[in-house]
Amino acid sequence: MSLVREFSLESWMTQRLSEVEQALDNWVSTQAPAGLAHAAPVELVHAMRYAVLDGGKRLRPLLVLASFEALSPGEKSPGQSAALRAACAVELIHAYSLVHDDMPCMDNDVLRRGKPTVHVQFGQASALLAGDALQALAFEILTPSDGSVAADTQARLCALLSRAAGSSGMAGGQAIDLASVGHALSEQHLREMHQLKTGALIQGSVLMGAACASPSPEALSGLTAYGESMGLAFQVVDDILDVIADAGKLGKTVGKDAQNDKPTYVSLMGLSKSQAYAQELLASALSALEASGLRDTQALSALAGMVVNRGH
Amino acid sequence: MSLVREFSLESWMTQRLSEVEQALDNWVSTQAPAGLAHAAPVELVHAMRYAVLDGGKRLRPLLVLASFEALSPGEKSPGQSAALRAACAVELIHAYSLVHDDMPCMDNDVLRRGKPTVHVQFGQASALLAGDALQALAFEILTPSDGSVAADTQARLCALLSRAAGSSGMAGGQAIDLASVGHALSEQHLREMHQLKTGALIQGSVLMGAACASPSPEALSGLTAYGESMGLAFQVVDDILDVIADAGKLGKTVGKDAQNDKPTYVSLMGLSKSQAYAQELLASALSALEASGLRDTQALSALAGMVVNRGH
Repeated sequence: MSLVREFSLESWMTQRLSEVEQALDNWVSTQAPAGLAHAAPVELVHAMRYAVLDGGKRLRPLLVLASFEALSPGEKSPGQSAALRAACAVELIHAYSLVHDDMPCMDNDVLRRGKPTVHVQFGQASALLAGDALQALAFEILTPSDGSVAADTQARLCALLSRAAGSSGMAGGQAIDLASVGHALSEQHLREMHQLKTGALIQGSVLMGAACASPSPEALSGLTAYGESMGLAFQVVDDILDVIADAGKLGKTVGKDAQNDKPTYVSLMGLSKSQAYAQELLASALSALEASGLRDTQALSALAGMVVNRGH
Repeated sequence: MSLVREFSLESWMTQRLSEVEQALDNWVSTQAPAGLAHAAPVELVHAMRYAVLDGGKRLRPLLVLASFEALSPGEKSPGQSAALRAACAVELIHAYSLVHDDMPCMDNDVLRRGKPTVHVQFGQASALLAGDALQALAFEILTPSDGSVAADTQARLCALLSRAAGSSGMAGGQAIDLASVGHALSEQHLREMHQLKTGALIQGSVLMGAACASPSPEALSGLTAYGESMGLAFQVVDDILDVIADAGKLGKTVGKDAQNDKPTYVSLMGLSKSQAYAQELLASALSALEASGLRDTQALSALAGMVVNRGH
């Protein structure tokens, strides 16, 4: 009998997702955080919870946790509480970006994960405020005053998240995206746009997981390269799915990119080259893991495969 | 000849404002922050700079610096660099909230500080993104990697700012404000709404200044009470000015609150009682400073007087 247990992504994910959902449910709540006089107003929190607790895939939190666990494979590692907070903080940033992105002045999308978008359900003003409050909440979660996360880890996580979310990251990529509608982009420009828009937060997830442990330079450089390939792969596959998936599975409007005259990998490279490119990026991600010198990378490998070969 | 030099708020402010404007000009820029591969896209940064570098009164940065200096009166104190970052971070949060608040789905204001609002100038989508990016930038500024700010100070500043800005602070207050349009509010409810909407960030400014030094419990408690009175006073005076000031001086549309059927101190208490209440709050702020045991509170006192007795 082999002592090496087969890694099951499904059972790994089930356990992690349950922790993440529970934590998000606790932290996006009307309860006043410890040490604060005021609880958040109920109406606002309803919109925030609607935006977050909706059965998203939670890819970013899973990447945070998988990255942390590759560096700290034991049970009850010291950074575990920080990693769970980082996982949820990244998801809050992702959730806020979807709320704002769906608004009429942006993509004007009415359907998200099979449900009416936040502004359809609560009105535009509440959607705007809920998104704003979710961004702030991400940094609240990263900076607990209960001693559960070391101050230098808190500072490092805030540094990574703010840069991944801001004008040199996600928000910057969205601005390029906005400016690019109806314009032809070179492959180089398209890649740069996506490196910011989607890649920065996906790579940031991997780096935030690492920041909860103490990576060697070799490990950090491998994880950084893994994160970069994953960020690009995610967007390439997203563009492919916008063309080939059906709306029921995707849970959002299909064909929006073409309708909006948005440049995508598929419009630029064609479908089959885009599919080949996604596989190349998967191979790069896996070889970056090998180069990292880390042994416990099963979850990271499996997540890479899942991202590239997903059907929705 | 007295050895005690008379304190001049004007010359104190001139010097501090010049530092703050210079720092904001540096930090809200298209330059890639150290250690980042990507610069922010130019279009986005233009909208961000338009929102920030516009001759605002900078009350919040001044409160950060005055609070820090009351605790660290010497030249070249160790927390000085942190205090300047905190001052700018608070202003970025304030600026983003104005950009989003002015949007058509919120207050639909076209004039701000005598200029077209950001969405009028750049379009709604860019205004939304610029506001989002400014919020992230506030946390980027608080978490430099150059060793200029100690990690525990970074963490504490991020904790204070995120809570002041989020669902239990500014964004929460805006949500209550939104829900209150056309409804009668009790004085108690109005005060609670403003404690979140405006008070949290003003009090947060004072606390962030303090977090850059090492306040005694007595000093911290005095500054906390000062910040609370200042937050309320600012809003009471704002409500008064919305009724009595002229648009040229105020730099924004006058009479908006009544037009929008928003509850204000003036609509609730009447003009003269509101004016008396503002003076009471000024007295509370000043006695809180006395109780703090701090000696170098001239700037804080003078700022309190300026806030309550301002004409715009």
